Amino acid sequence: MEAMEAILSRRSIRRYSGESVSEELIKELLQAAMSAPSASNEQPWQFVIIDDRRILDEIPRFHPYAHMLKEASWAIAVCGDLNLEMMSGYWIQDCSAATQNILLAAHARGLGAVWLGVYPNGERVKTVQKLLGLPENVMPLCFISIGYPAEKKPPSNRYNESRVHHNHW
Amino acid sequence: MEAMEAILSRRSIRRYSGESVSEELIKELLQAAMSAPSASNEQPWQFVIIDDRRILDEIPRFHPYAHMLKEASWAIAVCGDLNLEMMSGYWIQDCSAATQNILLAAHARGLGAVWLGVYPNGERVKTVQKLLGLPENVMPLCFISIGYPAEKKPPSNRYNESRVHHNHW
Repeated sequence: MEAMEAILSRRSIRRYSGESVSEELIKELLQAAMSAPSASNEQPWQFVIIDDRRILDEIPRFHPYAHMLKEASWAIAVCGDLNLEMMSGYWIQDCSAATQNILLAAHARGLGAVWLGVYPNGERVKTVQKLLGLPENVMPLCFISIGYPAEKKPPSNRYNESRVHHNHW
Repeated sequence: MEAMEAILSRRSIRRYSGESVSEELIKELLQAAMSAPSASNEQPWQFVIIDDRRILDEIPRFHPYAHMLKEASWAIAVCGDLNLEMMSGYWIQDCSAATQNILLAAHARGLGAVWLGVYPNGERVKTVQKLLGLPENVMPLCFISIGYPAEKKPPSNRYNESRVHHNHW
């Protein structure tokens, strides 16, 4: 798939076929993630890839928008490691760029995916840290739910001229 | 350019040929930006596209890593509009995803670009708000410097197996 097409046609996919996604494909998504830029190239990210059905089924019990994980093949928890930060406070941006790369790579590879926010919801952060055994310095930014798509969505043109300003507000 | 190739081969480009980049191409980058996902699809972003040489030359006077703007054709200030947030606190993630889309689209279109952090540096945020006349509720996340590349960088393989955890830390 052409890069611009992938960017413009990616949608949040919440229904999956049940077909299992290979760990090799998940590794490709992580290669995409770690190709993201980061402040001072600090790469402050950590990833937990999840295919344990008990964990996938547990997440929707505390995350109100994560019901699709019951059908997903994998979830990836994208986390920021505060001990790896050289430029304090930029991990959210770095990990968000990595997350966007995963979503685009998934779409380009014929997978469906959706970003499920965790941080800055303090309750969700603590629950995920406990569920996955994360050290206190590892902050879960989000889950990405991944599977082969069982729904098709047309590209959504969100371009909004009123959000564009030229040289000055 | 193929999507996965674009993701894996994108690098921060800080030297430019001086050739001017058309406003049409900048509009394509903004279409890419606004195709990013956002919390509850709130799309809390605003963009200031800058080709005024006085403004481009002014930015490196207060931003220590922005010297390349003196050679750049455009900068895009990616901003979060707090008045457009429905899910409070997610604008940084939403605008970071939009920024990553711009970087990838620029690379796919043969341009060079680099992400210059502004937020959460409070001093820089205030200076940019004043320079661009932004309302108080509009937070500049970053500048993206854009031009035709005058340097070539090979893909950088940042994949790091030690950052990958399976089901549990």
